[in-house]
Amino acid sequence: MQFSDHSSEESHPILTWKSIMDWAQTHYRDRIFRKDEQIPVRPQLIYLVNQGAIRLVSETQMHQEDHCLDNITESDPGLTEEVETAFLGFVGVGKPFEVLSHHSFSFHAYAHVDYTQVAWLYWQDLENWPDFRQEIYNAFRDQHQRKLLWLSALGQRRTIDRLTSFLTLLIEEYGRENDQQYCLPYTLTHAQIGSAIGSTRVTVTRLMGKLRRQGIISVKNDNSICINTLLIDRNNLKL
Amino acid sequence: MQFSDHSSEESHPILTWKSIMDWAQTHYRDRIFRKDEQIPVRPQLIYLVNQGAIRLVSETQMHQEDHCLDNITESDPGLTEEVETAFLGFVGVGKPFEVLSHHSFSFHAYAHVDYTQVAWLYWQDLENWPDFRQEIYNAFRDQHQRKLLWLSALGQRRTIDRLTSFLTLLIEEYGRENDQQYCLPYTLTHAQIGSAIGSTRVTVTRLMGKLRRQGIISVKNDNSICINTLLIDRNNLKL
Repeated sequence: MQFSDHSSEESHPILTWKSIMDWAQTHYRDRIFRKDEQIPVRPQLIYLVNQGAIRLVSETQMHQEDHCLDNITESDPGLTEEVETAFLGFVGVGKPFEVLSHHSFSFHAYAHVDYTQVAWLYWQDLENWPDFRQEIYNAFRDQHQRKLLWLSALGQRRTIDRLTSFLTLLIEEYGRENDQQYCLPYTLTHAQIGSAIGSTRVTVTRLMGKLRRQGIISVKNDNSICINTLLIDRNNLKL
Repeated sequence: MQFSDHSSEESHPILTWKSIMDWAQTHYRDRIFRKDEQIPVRPQLIYLVNQGAIRLVSETQMHQEDHCLDNITESDPGLTEEVETAFLGFVGVGKPFEVLSHHSFSFHAYAHVDYTQVAWLYWQDLENWPDFRQEIYNAFRDQHQRKLLWLSALGQRRTIDRLTSFLTLLIEEYGRENDQQYCLPYTLTHAQIGSAIGSTRVTVTRLMGKLRRQGIISVKNDNSICINTLLIDRNNLKL
């Protein structure tokens, strides 16, 4: 099943997905991207990931005039840059995304792996596929709930709690089972993790070391992050 | 217009809203709550706010065995509690909400003001109102984008940046214009703000004082928070 967990009883979602991808190719509405290549995105379009994975980030200008290092315990060279980036999540195969235009934060999408294929269309293009349009809405509804969980994780005061919850939620959503562990199929740098949880690369490196020593997480040779299955209950996630 | 900004060209959204509220009353599916009273919520139902406002929060158990105060600069009595709460936003009049069941975080809804009226229904109850069902999906789609903005705000490393962005986003979404300022129509305690931005009540109080002295925010006699209109561009928020 390509699209979402809601679609099992819908009318042939895989065939619909395939016909939309065929339509996108015929209309020059798809492209393959290299790892870390930016996807040109704009509001009012829907983007569909047919292959690979997208990394969503936001950027904001730092307030340089007020650079007093409140509540930062380590110095970090990144802090002197003018633009602060936040990692907002992945969009995997069979999932849609869209971007908002905002005066303070700008959203960007990058191919997180090589050969990431993305198609784009307007909402009105979906009038021929009403069931699929409904699937997109369901996907955004699911994502809204997932982001409420992220916000719950980021509301925690201790950085190590934010980090542990963030990794758990990420692996719950995208992880694959691997030898009694759940592992993230994508790599993330410590700077990217820090950008998601309001911390620095240096702090993330220190706390990841602590979580590894405690046996809560492990990091494989290819740098992918795994978590003890006991911490995860994928079946207990219901909307 | 009661429901959402998308509904202006739909078929009489106010009449639909009213007929749904009438249906809910007839079927004993609505109730009025006092300030801070908890709304009994469960997954698979949709809740509609007809009057007042809802405060959404999540709760999680603290990991007591690892209580080493990482990256907390002030001691805070709240930190020794077993349950950590995160403020996740408001749901205003004419808006829907739903809750997810999750093993680590539990979601709760409270009446944020007196006389908050909430109705509830199942998705299948909405089959008679397909346009309205679509409006609910649009509302969740909007909320998903708003929560991506929140995540962008919370990814910032400095607490004062998280605080400023958080207040700006909140007032952008819910604020009302008042004497060349935008003010939040609801009060929020410093502890509630801290619970949203991964900080403590003490730190929020200190940084709110700083933002007031800098003229970025002001706090009215009724404790509502206002922000300089120059920081806000409500028209520049497009999906």
